[in-house]
Amino acid sequence: MSDNPSFVLKAVEDVVYEQRPIPEISGNQVLIKIKKTGICGSDVHFYAHGRIAHLVAKNMVLGHESAGIVHAVGPDVKHLKVGDRVAVEPGITCGTCDTCRLGRYNLCADIAFAATPPTDGTLARFYRVPAHLAYPLPDGLSLEDGAMMEPLAVAVHAVSSLGSFRNNQTIAIFGCGPVGLLCMAVARAFGASRIIAVDIVQSRLDFAKEYTGADTYLPIPFKEGESKVEYSQRSASAMQQQLGIEDRGPKAVDLVIDASGAEVSIQTAFYIAKTGGTFVQVGIGAFDVTVNFGMLLIKELTCKGAFRYGPGDYPHAIALVAQGKIDLRPLVTHRFPFDQALTAFNATRDGKSKDGKGVLKAIISGPDVPIDED
Amino acid sequence: MSDNPSFVLKAVEDVVYEQRPIPEISGNQVLIKIKKTGICGSDVHFYAHGRIAHLVAKNMVLGHESAGIVHAVGPDVKHLKVGDRVAVEPGITCGTCDTCRLGRYNLCADIAFAATPPTDGTLARFYRVPAHLAYPLPDGLSLEDGAMMEPLAVAVHAVSSLGSFRNNQTIAIFGCGPVGLLCMAVARAFGASRIIAVDIVQSRLDFAKEYTGADTYLPIPFKEGESKVEYSQRSASAMQQQLGIEDRGPKAVDLVIDASGAEVSIQTAFYIAKTGGTFVQVGIGAFDVTVNFGMLLIKELTCKGAFRYGPGDYPHAIALVAQGKIDLRPLVTHRFPFDQALTAFNATRDGKSKDGKGVLKAIISGPDVPIDED
Amino acid sequence: MSDNPSFVLKAVEDVVYEQRPIPEISGNQVLIKIKKTGICGSDVHFYAHGRIAHLVAKNMVLGHESAGIVHAVGPDVKHLKVGDRVAVEPGITCGTCDTCRLGRYNLCADIAFAATPPTDGTLARFYRVPAHLAYPLPDGLSLEDGAMMEPLAVAVHAVSSLGSFRNNQTIAIFGCGPVGLLCMAVARAFGASRIIAVDIVQSRLDFAKEYTGADTYLPIPFKEGESKVEYSQRSASAMQQQLGIEDRGPKAVDLVIDASGAEVSIQTAFYIAKTGGTFVQVGIGAFDVTVNFGMLLIKELTCKGAFRYGPGDYPHAIALVAQGKIDLRPLVTHRFPFDQALTAFNATRDGKSKDGKGVLKAIISGPDVPIDED
Amino acid sequence: MSDNPSFVLKAVEDVVYEQRPIPEISGNQVLIKIKKTGICGSDVHFYAHGRIAHLVAKNMVLGHESAGIVHAVGPDVKHLKVGDRVAVEPGITCGTCDTCRLGRYNLCADIAFAATPPTDGTLARFYRVPAHLAYPLPDGLSLEDGAMMEPLAVAVHAVSSLGSFRNNQTIAIFGCGPVGLLCMAVARAFGASRIIAVDIVQSRLDFAKEYTGADTYLPIPFKEGESKVEYSQRSASAMQQQLGIEDRGPKAVDLVIDASGAEVSIQTAFYIAKTGGTFVQVGIGAFDVTVNFGMLLIKELTCKGAFRYGPGDYPHAIALVAQGKIDLRPLVTHRFPFDQALTAFNATRDGKSKDGKGVLKAIISGPDVPIDED
Repeated sequence: MSDNPSFVLKAVEDVVYEQRPIPEISGNQVLIKIKKTGICGSDVHFYAHGRIAHLVAKNMVLGHESAGIVHAVGPDVKHLKVGDRVAVEPGITCGTCDTCRLGRYNLCADIAFAATPPTDGTLARFYRVPAHLAYPLPDGLSLEDGAMMEPLAVAVHAVSSLGSFRNNQTIAIFGCGPVGLLCMAVARAFGASRIIAVDIVQSRLDFAKEYTGADTYLPIPFKEGESKVEYSQRSASAMQQQLGIEDRGPKAVDLVIDASGAEVSIQTAFYIAKTGGTFVQVGIGAFDVTVNFGMLLIKELTCKGAFRYGPGDYPHAIALVAQGKIDLRPLVTHRFPFDQALTAFNATRDGKSKDGKGVLKAIISGPDVPIDED
Repeated sequence: MSDNPSFVLKAVEDVVYEQRPIPEISGNQVLIKIKKTGICGSDVHFYAHGRIAHLVAKNMVLGHESAGIVHAVGPDVKHLKVGDRVAVEPGITCGTCDTCRLGRYNLCADIAFAATPPTDGTLARFYRVPAHLAYPLPDGLSLEDGAMMEPLAVAVHAVSSLGSFRNNQTIAIFGCGPVGLLCMAVARAFGASRIIAVDIVQSRLDFAKEYTGADTYLPIPFKEGESKVEYSQRSASAMQQQLGIEDRGPKAVDLVIDASGAEVSIQTAFYIAKTGGTFVQVGIGAFDVTVNFGMLLIKELTCKGAFRYGPGDYPHAIALVAQGKIDLRPLVTHRFPFDQALTAFNATRDGKSKDGKGVLKAIISGPDVPIDED
Repeated sequence: MSDNPSFVLKAVEDVVYEQRPIPEISGNQVLIKIKKTGICGSDVHFYAHGRIAHLVAKNMVLGHESAGIVHAVGPDVKHLKVGDRVAVEPGITCGTCDTCRLGRYNLCADIAFAATPPTDGTLARFYRVPAHLAYPLPDGLSLEDGAMMEPLAVAVHAVSSLGSFRNNQTIAIFGCGPVGLLCMAVARAFGASRIIAVDIVQSRLDFAKEYTGADTYLPIPFKEGESKVEYSQRSASAMQQQLGIEDRGPKAVDLVIDASGAEVSIQTAFYIAKTGGTFVQVGIGAFDVTVNFGMLLIKELTCKGAFRYGPGDYPHAIALVAQGKIDLRPLVTHRFPFDQALTAFNATRDGKSKDGKGVLKAIISGPDVPIDED
Repeated sequence: MSDNPSFVLKAVEDVVYEQRPIPEISGNQVLIKIKKTGICGSDVHFYAHGRIAHLVAKNMVLGHESAGIVHAVGPDVKHLKVGDRVAVEPGITCGTCDTCRLGRYNLCADIAFAATPPTDGTLARFYRVPAHLAYPLPDGLSLEDGAMMEPLAVAVHAVSSLGSFRNNQTIAIFGCGPVGLLCMAVARAFGASRIIAVDIVQSRLDFAKEYTGADTYLPIPFKEGESKVEYSQRSASAMQQQLGIEDRGPKAVDLVIDASGAEVSIQTAFYIAKTGGTFVQVGIGAFDVTVNFGMLLIKELTCKGAFRYGPGDYPHAIALVAQGKIDLRPLVTHRFPFDQALTAFNATRDGKSKDGKGVLKAIISGPDVPIDED
């Protein structure tokens, strides 16, 4: 049977709806009827550029932030049954390589990740995963919440699994897009003593403040002729002064996360982090970044890259919402039916919909699924 | 009493011998009669430039890698007695601030570190430290070994305390100066499965190979017009191919240490480190360094700065030599009497003595101490 | 001058008020006028038995959970001034031994800890500590809160520093005395997904439930003739069934803390902890404890002893209350003026005051300090 | 085809040779022709008692320490080919449960482990495993070495993965059987500053001393009427005095491993471990063990159970031998052909063969494999 309408990227900015075969399932696999899919910056990047680094998308179904209903289960599946509402973790790993066995499966060389070439994504009626990647949604979580588990797991990974953020610490986050906001939400749920949000758009800072109680910093303007490095150091000083940030003690920043991908954010972060502090880069942006290694050395910073999410991050994300520590609903600003997927992509790319409303997260419903079904 | 001849930096390249007061001791302090002092790159940098970053040296006694004989002990000192041979840890910390109490005393804001302005160094007849910073030398260790404990502790800190290097791991070290060589020696003592040495001088690579059994890489030449970034990626590929380095598994590089301070070394290191690997910068060099954050992210690298040494590093360094796991003698290439300290500094700055012999480590004897006394 | 009335233990159950000299201060010391002192189980143990293990108290001032007002500061003190309200960390450590420098100062061999022989305690008008052990109380914290920082720091140490408890984990705590309750409060502040309280007194369980939202378990009765080991295994099964505790997954217990000191608690804990879980013993009780090493092995448990508190625990405790995450007031059930200290000790020993009211924490005011002064 | 002679335990001390079907392979499975199998204490325990705890063996093929030759490979196998010499990791894990994904696969609830009921063992002509559990043997390693990888992985897990043993630390190991000796060998390979071996048999201590340079302690005799607890404390004191063991500093014991399973060993270990030290129990013995929780508390010991081996332990074990850091040959004291398997079991059970020679490790060759083939 092949009634599996799918939203396919043919080439740069060239998307079509195609009928794809419905995946057959066996063993411990489950077939998910996709209900809700969020659009991520990487989806848009593939749509707009056809590639990310050396990964070229061609005839690839888009989408990887999804939730749905279990439609069929393989003969070995024990913990799921048809009809279960599930969030879908979109990376299928080998389970046997060194990184998988060592508890860092996100670094698996053979990972098949939805909508990362050559693996098809989830913007379709049906999607197949091994049963352990379909997480039952607790009562009280909507299917939109389920779709949001993917970016929330990214935030949990960066803030907790890599950043080791704890109660009573201070975090500064550069970039108030969905991932940055979710990092703030996680930090607040963990008992942050202070959250500092940085963005170049005041309205995004306002939202961050309202959503997580963050203190905010709007970077000072560039000066004619100064280098990014010079600017960053000057901006860091301004930020420290405005917000009373110190290098040590309770007014220091324990963890800095860059969720903006902008070089000046990363540069500034190195000055803002406390002596002995940690910096985590989440999500890709600038590739060649000039940073101050004097800061790295004299403050003995620890600097890490955060790639997707690993062991325990999905369950942790689900629990945070189930326990009422994080409310994801304010982040979903736009909803589209399946046949308007292109409009959703364009709105996300532009940062606003045609009515001028800023996009944080746009959710596309599955084929034949009403946008207000939950 | 004031018979304490000292080697003092007055201004850039302006050094003199001065009589300084002999420090008075009380409480748990000890007075050390300095016998041997090694010259470090930072000493030479102060001599040649008068400053490091914002730290300006003026009327400062130079030297901080020292060993000597306990000359007098304060009334509260229990574990040392006059005549004991000791290595001197040259950083006096407050013991009560957050970083001290948390076990990262090298990050103490109030550290008084020998020959870092405004604290005087050890190139004098007498030097005073709290008793716990004077480590008795086990039988079999010479006073020159004692002076070498300082750079060896730097290597222990980078390789073990921060790099968490373990048996059966592979390490790559950029820079075959004293600190780089000591990092290799530590890695070998820890049971490295493979040591890879990188330097732009073949003779230094030859020494590294002979001293630690390292495999070596002499970087390929620059191409006209290519950027440092382009060059580094190309050099990394060449290095991987020449040495059979892979990104994962037993042929991958678990830990990369840069002890060169050169931007291209750091850049290359990011490509060479394995997926999930660690990079440690030891010792300062280039400040603004352009690195590939794509590598940081996709490989989830951990990147750390190593500043001096912390808890346990000095005792660990002493033990490594006492147990015969490291032989420091091949590194001491030059010896000078106290009144030829200037010659020693010039030779270290030039990388070779007047007879053309390359300098790894030059040791200056204390006033009236023969260069062959041990 | 010597107007320093002190509450002194002469011998078993033999306490007197004595005038002791007012400590002289110098260097970085401060003199605290003690306002509030909580009574701890160890104080009562010394009072009732004259000793704990090999530590024999003789002519020792009692008390170590104190807060007060800075009365005088030494010439080197920078961050405190006369009149500051402070919580007093009662252990003076050497700052230079291996354990101090490694960031585990609570294990310092030379620690001088208030009311641990031979060091005098804080139940006096004046007490002297180094300035870094006097923590300014933020606005909103009372002096009673300040006195409670000591047991709260014990809880922070057990739950966080040793137990590494994180958001969304489940904790089970045996013993609903002050330390057990504070462990629950810390766990709740850290975002526990579930707190399980165990005690043999129903009213204490009721309090735990009201105070921290804990689920509770009242151990089943002993059977005639069964051993403690047999009982514990049976009780663990009953507890698992009653509360729906599993060995793995979200219904498993990540961290078990024993704050009861009872052998059957510890035994039961080994069965309750999840596969891969952690057990922490806080506070001393039974010495020779028979535990199931099969559990330790097959579940690869990690089992730790928690001794007092270490780096960062006091500031963390203060922050938890200042940020409103923990309310200490419900725990203070009794207040006594200084001249009724003996009554306070007897009430704490008996677990209730003469009016029959159960004692959780009794606070003794300093000499001439009204019990309702704050 | 069914020519797969197997050594089967029918009931207590009732073993027979049976023909079992040759396993069929598919996917990523490989069929190993077993060449060498070591006998482990647990094999003997099943043979002698028919069970371990609640695990009852019935009609189960014995053996789990094996190496052999790849006889056939499934269609998905990439890294192995027919004829490869391999060591076999005998535990097949699910790869998808929480413990597997978190990097602790030895705690997998669904592990199928050779010769642990109901899973058949390796004492047969053929054995089937997923390809990633068959580790190619580097040149220089014999098939007997390959069989020894299993107990060596146990030692690596206890000493390194759980014990975090590092260069320049002191280890004390109770029990000089194969696992104890291998723990010593691992510790020596990691650069132990001192190895202390404890056993109640002098000849085993002599072997330990010769094999690893260990200092040895032969426990003092029991006194009439004293309890195990009293004895253990007295024995610990004697051991400290004889060997100059201190509680802190370079003469302290950083890591204590019990590989004896005897209650008095474990009890003694708690007294011997340094302040802040670690105890690891490897291999099961006594179940209900009475230990001093005062020691646990006051010294803040960390106490762990070590169950088999986990991520990285098998490759690490292989590397240690391949790099010449450990020589396994002295441990193989007895060799038997397949048809004398019963004799091998009896000798291992008795601790000596009929000629009176003490058994450390007995190796049984596969069917038709000469005992001197390698």
